[in-house]
Amino acid sequence: MTSLHRGKQSMIFPSRPVVTAWASVAGKKEGEGPLGKSFDLVIPDGKYGENTWEQAETHFQRTAMDLLLEKAGPDSETPELVFSGDLLNQCVGSSYALRGSGLPALGLYGACSTMAEGLLLAGAMVNAGYAKHAAALSSSHFAAAERQYRFPLAYGGQRTPTAQWTVTGAGAVLASAEGSGPVLTGATVGTVEDKGITDANNMGAAMAWAAYRTIRANLEDLGRRPEDYDRIVTGDLGSLGSAMVREFFAADGVRLGERYTDCGVLIYDREAQDVHCGGSGAGCSAVVLAARLLPGFSAGQWKRILFCGTGALLSPTTVQQKRSIPAICHAVVIEN
Amino acid sequence: MTSLHRGKQSMIFPSRPVVTAWASVAGKKEGEGPLGKSFDLVIPDGKYGENTWEQAETHFQRTAMDLLLEKAGPDSETPELVFSGDLLNQCVGSSYALRGSGLPALGLYGACSTMAEGLLLAGAMVNAGYAKHAAALSSSHFAAAERQYRFPLAYGGQRTPTAQWTVTGAGAVLASAEGSGPVLTGATVGTVEDKGITDANNMGAAMAWAAYRTIRANLEDLGRRPEDYDRIVTGDLGSLGSAMVREFFAADGVRLGERYTDCGVLIYDREAQDVHCGGSGAGCSAVVLAARLLPGFSAGQWKRILFCGTGALLSPTTVQQKRSIPAICHAVVIEN
Repeated sequence: MTSLHRGKQSMIFPSRPVVTAWASVAGKKEGEGPLGKSFDLVIPDGKYGENTWEQAETHFQRTAMDLLLEKAGPDSETPELVFSGDLLNQCVGSSYALRGSGLPALGLYGACSTMAEGLLLAGAMVNAGYAKHAAALSSSHFAAAERQYRFPLAYGGQRTPTAQWTVTGAGAVLASAEGSGPVLTGATVGTVEDKGITDANNMGAAMAWAAYRTIRANLEDLGRRPEDYDRIVTGDLGSLGSAMVREFFAADGVRLGERYTDCGVLIYDREAQDVHCGGSGAGCSAVVLAARLLPGFSAGQWKRILFCGTGALLSPTTVQQKRSIPAICHAVVIEN
Repeated sequence: MTSLHRGKQSMIFPSRPVVTAWASVAGKKEGEGPLGKSFDLVIPDGKYGENTWEQAETHFQRTAMDLLLEKAGPDSETPELVFSGDLLNQCVGSSYALRGSGLPALGLYGACSTMAEGLLLAGAMVNAGYAKHAAALSSSHFAAAERQYRFPLAYGGQRTPTAQWTVTGAGAVLASAEGSGPVLTGATVGTVEDKGITDANNMGAAMAWAAYRTIRANLEDLGRRPEDYDRIVTGDLGSLGSAMVREFFAADGVRLGERYTDCGVLIYDREAQDVHCGGSGAGCSAVVLAARLLPGFSAGQWKRILFCGTGALLSPTTVQQKRSIPAICHAVVIEN
């Protein structure tokens, strides 16, 4: 059996699964941001016609999945696997979205790194021949996340300068054995890292070290330098967290430069939208991947990128118990 | 690329990954049950020396993982992948258990089906050559689950006749490219099913249909009949849920007979331990797999079994919002 493992934490996909379709459904604030015109659909109503935030989030995911299958084409076969997850307790956004769909479903929890985790697993399964098509699906919802993780909106709590704004949106991506589109050539699975950050309002800082570790592992495992990627994009470190990643690399004598950016930084206009440190949430990297990163290939903007989903693995309970915040980062190599 | 997909929802593992090690760490009630002498370790202190139930659950998982690596042997290489998940909000049991371990970690959420989900993914990744060793890890804790899903113990709430008792315990299993032990030959990925059950105190009923659907899919996809398995074992349907599965098959004219049983039924003495419908929780199928099912192979008790983890995908929030309970079942074929 040929080993598809590389180095400490990485794997390669020699059959180069193709990303044949992608879809993004975002909320009002996201629609007013820099990527507003790039989403497949913007839903101005935060409730999306539903009674609760959780049901709204399920609706966002369901729509993203429906759009994905539509874009895959009328003759496209149904995916044999769907990897999905979200931030809601017990990932109910995803479960209720896939309920009754008949799609074989594998639930994930990677916090805000879920899209990267799903994408790497989808690519791995297609590369190995377990599926001709495998989808990755993730979402978040600002109001649902605020109530669950922090406070209900009606509380009127003040956000700290390091806080990030949870994206309302769902992204869906399809990896296929054949077709046209960017290809997945490998991935680096993250390790759970913890640098002792206890401030739940500064998740960018909590995740920055995990991002640095995984990006470094990817470069070492695959024998690459940052210049081998046109873009290295983290999921939702935000402006502070991404600055920290630059510092970590600078301490190694490595200048990341303009090739490094972050989905949490890309999704909102920092000044005009008063989001403090930027976007966050499992939906953040999911919609930015679909609306900005994947289209960039056919637009000729990049040939190879490293998509690094980042997740903070805390819960309100662990914060109340005064435990520090572990984090993880999973990276996927996407090429022309 | 050879297709490893079979039928609608299944996959095969032609290189037959070997289950080279397993470990179970269980709590006091479990230690007093029929499998009490079979667990690797029984921890009578529910807090396991920690300050909180959540930290206790992490300790259970950490110990299971440590024992697993010990049993894998001093010359054994570190697993390149660990799949883990639990029932705690944001799966913190698992994240804190793997924190700082340096093990590449992929977080799952499958509720009580998590061990089966992790085992099928571990088998798939080893079969494909992404890892020489991949571990699956899962846990639950009675007191943590009661507080999170129902009420704190001090509330003194009464349990209904259909209620199940969340297992306190962690199980860990290692799939390897080579070695001796039972082998994983295939799996069936479940779909999210919902038959409209709204009673959160009757999760056996909520999950029974999902179990029936996945077992049927496995039989159809792999061209088998129940007699091709020495045992078909669901994760935690308990006595009522497993009776329902028998009825569903009986309605098809299929008599499951003695070959069908359930981990929630196996783990406690129903009369002596007053657990009503039996055990439940992500730790249930995990510890029973490690303590009873896997050892049964070398004991000559069975040659081929179908291990069917079952999960109810509700949350306290969805119950409060009066939504019905979706469920899923993932099945793994384990042979001599």
